[in-house]
Amino acid sequence: MRQFACFLAAALVAAAPAHAQDLAAQAAGVRDKALADSTAWTIVESLTSEVGARPVGAPAMERARDWGVATLIALGFENVHVEPFTTKAWIRGEEAAEVVGPWPQKLQILGLGNSAPTPTGGLTAEIALFRTYQALLDQPPGALKGKIAVVTQAMPRTKDASSYGASVAWRTTGPLEAARRGAVGYLVRSISTADSRLPHTGLSDPAGIPAAALSPPDAEQLERLAARGRPVTVRLVMSSRVIAAAPAWNVVGEIRGSERPDEVIVVGGHLDSWDPGTGAIDDGAGVAITTAAARIAGLPQRPKRTLRVVMWGSEEQGGSGAAYGRAHQDEVARIVVAGEADLGAGRVWRAALPAGGLDHPAMRAFAATVAPIGVPMMREPPRYGGSDIQALIAAGAPCFLFGQDASRYFDLHHSADDTLDKIDPADLSQVVAVWASFLYLAANSDVDFRAAKPTR
Amino acid sequence: MRQFACFLAAALVAAAPAHAQDLAAQAAGVRDKALADSTAWTIVESLTSEVGARPVGAPAMERARDWGVATLIALGFENVHVEPFTTKAWIRGEEAAEVVGPWPQKLQILGLGNSAPTPTGGLTAEIALFRTYQALLDQPPGALKGKIAVVTQAMPRTKDASSYGASVAWRTTGPLEAARRGAVGYLVRSISTADSRLPHTGLSDPAGIPAAALSPPDAEQLERLAARGRPVTVRLVMSSRVIAAAPAWNVVGEIRGSERPDEVIVVGGHLDSWDPGTGAIDDGAGVAITTAAARIAGLPQRPKRTLRVVMWGSEEQGGSGAAYGRAHQDEVARIVVAGEADLGAGRVWRAALPAGGLDHPAMRAFAATVAPIGVPMMREPPRYGGSDIQALIAAGAPCFLFGQDASRYFDLHHSADDTLDKIDPADLSQVVAVWASFLYLAANSDVDFRAAKPTR
Repeated sequence: MRQFACFLAAALVAAAPAHAQDLAAQAAGVRDKALADSTAWTIVESLTSEVGARPVGAPAMERARDWGVATLIALGFENVHVEPFTTKAWIRGEEAAEVVGPWPQKLQILGLGNSAPTPTGGLTAEIALFRTYQALLDQPPGALKGKIAVVTQAMPRTKDASSYGASVAWRTTGPLEAARRGAVGYLVRSISTADSRLPHTGLSDPAGIPAAALSPPDAEQLERLAARGRPVTVRLVMSSRVIAAAPAWNVVGEIRGSERPDEVIVVGGHLDSWDPGTGAIDDGAGVAITTAAARIAGLPQRPKRTLRVVMWGSEEQGGSGAAYGRAHQDEVARIVVAGEADLGAGRVWRAALPAGGLDHPAMRAFAATVAPIGVPMMREPPRYGGSDIQALIAAGAPCFLFGQDASRYFDLHHSADDTLDKIDPADLSQVVAVWASFLYLAANSDVDFRAAKPTR
Repeated sequence: MRQFACFLAAALVAAAPAHAQDLAAQAAGVRDKALADSTAWTIVESLTSEVGARPVGAPAMERARDWGVATLIALGFENVHVEPFTTKAWIRGEEAAEVVGPWPQKLQILGLGNSAPTPTGGLTAEIALFRTYQALLDQPPGALKGKIAVVTQAMPRTKDASSYGASVAWRTTGPLEAARRGAVGYLVRSISTADSRLPHTGLSDPAGIPAAALSPPDAEQLERLAARGRPVTVRLVMSSRVIAAAPAWNVVGEIRGSERPDEVIVVGGHLDSWDPGTGAIDDGAGVAITTAAARIAGLPQRPKRTLRVVMWGSEEQGGSGAAYGRAHQDEVARIVVAGEADLGAGRVWRAALPAGGLDHPAMRAFAATVAPIGVPMMREPPRYGGSDIQALIAAGAPCFLFGQDASRYFDLHHSADDTLDKIDPADLSQVVAVWASFLYLAANSDVDFRAAKPTR
């Protein structure tokens, strides 16, 4: 109750004519409220417990949609609605892998999205193992004929997630490159920084061959077997299927602006997840962060501009960003700025804004608000916003990016280990505090992120 | 080559009349040779790569037996042979678990050894969840009628493995205690210190009901669902079977003593493992440590007493220690001392010897030899030697115990994560150095571990 009273006071102050000092004081109040608030935790706890894994095309996705609508309504959002679309959905079936010889043993795999199934009864073939992806690419056409190509290069750990960009092609493009060289199957060391026996899935380009991720220990085991110099034979059994036009939904809620409701700030995370975990860090956290931040920034005192939260419905297999872009192409000019939270629940350690907004008093106030919680402002605009807002960005919407500490993210990402217990509530609150401070200031000011970069 | 020359010099010195200073110098040479030696790594790499998981009753166990014989012969052991016995073997079948309602989702489980299978088609029942084992025990007879009992208490992390003793009853006796109260199934949070989504198996007392371990995140998920106050229904499908008298083998090799070959020092690890991992820390490491240490201590210069290495063939499900004790009951009086390495590959941080040997010059030399590598001598004798030597100990054989750092052991133990990459070669060498120093000194002296404790 005391917390609520404090917030009300801050909100009343917000109604006063804004100048830099007021803005900073108001934003600090929002930040501190967010740091003490548990809404984001409650949201991600609810989603991961009551819905669990949410792969597009599965019945759980319908329950996730209904959960999203109910959650937004319960939290006081307006104009809560669902925007349906259809998308291709790859559905995992039975999966098993084993070394048949010379040293028989089981392998832990997870099929990659878009993998072909094996023939009924499985696929048995000799492996051709490459310790780097480049070594696979160096193979001439036909060199892998009849083989299962295996790439065992390990992804390095980075705080800024840059190693993902440097290694994800081993998973996405690897099957196609292997098939082009004659391979009949493809196994890749999981794009993972963990040493756990859990494989990490993810999307791949359709290549017409079975393709799966090995757990890191299994990749190292195949390296050891291959190093013994005798042909190693592996058997795969995989039975996936594809739904060409699966129903999917973007779930939307708003807090309408009091003065300029047509000026819209679009934020969100994605509601779908891969199937092995419960989608806690990817991307229950993003849904929770953006929903909680919008609520803290926008209620009970309505902001001047509209805050819109979108729970995108098919990020992992693609489709929700494109559908959202198509449905809102006429609105892009009125989108003040867009942002997606899709890098887990680690603390924000840097913020990147469109260059034109950096020196606006509201954004100077933002810098002052988040500096004490460890967030410096980058002078460079973000190079990337998030896959669900790429279509908006391509159409001209400005975007921001709050860089989260990704050091542990790829230990968990796309694996069975993506579960609620991996989220630190204190870290989660820090992220919400950064988002809420920003949303408050962007929605209660006239900052124009499309402005030319000020000369200095 | 240089290493070999150094060792030969040390071995020649060993032939000189032993007094305390000589002994210490010789043992230091053995220790340093072991620290630089990779035999143990080579052994555990070979076993885990070429055989992999080795559950008793499975064909892999025969390959493990043959591997053991070939390895001991290749390393120069004598009298290499197999001692067959039979034992009960529980064989895992299909396993699956899911929450049926109100929030449907899959659960990650591993059946416990001795679990009953479910009826064909599975077992579906409401859960009764207890956050402590005591809360289950507090239930009166009949209180769990028709329910699947769930115990979610978390095992704490300890360096000395004492928390395992404090919690393992939740797994071993839990199914029986649940069945006594009317439960039709039993789920226990894995006896594990990890937060990974991998369950940890292990033996349980036969209770006539299906019993399985939940991964720690799944146990916490069930806590959250149960806390919502609505009945939670779970479905189990498990199809294990039992082989009443499975063939099994203890594999033995010796380095015969040059002066008193009938005085035997018995050491070893167990060759079998649970099925989900490759049995690297449990207990490929123990096999490797004791085999490598005996070879370093006993070759090329034969010791005065006999060093015997045993690779016990059914520790996890029991049987190999009892079989060994039965086969060697007439020999117990000639067993100088016995030791089993079965706590992974973490560094030795303390050593416990029978009280009577502590003040013998050879054991004073041992204390001086291992002190520089971080191993203090306990003044108390070991309370436990190892399950495969319990029958020997009960019949009067003295035992020693080198306490290894178990801080991470129960992150991996009995799970799919028990793989070679979890072993640090430097830590492994330190353990071998402790064992080799001890074996050298015990086999080249007249230390009598049965002596009355010296008065001081």
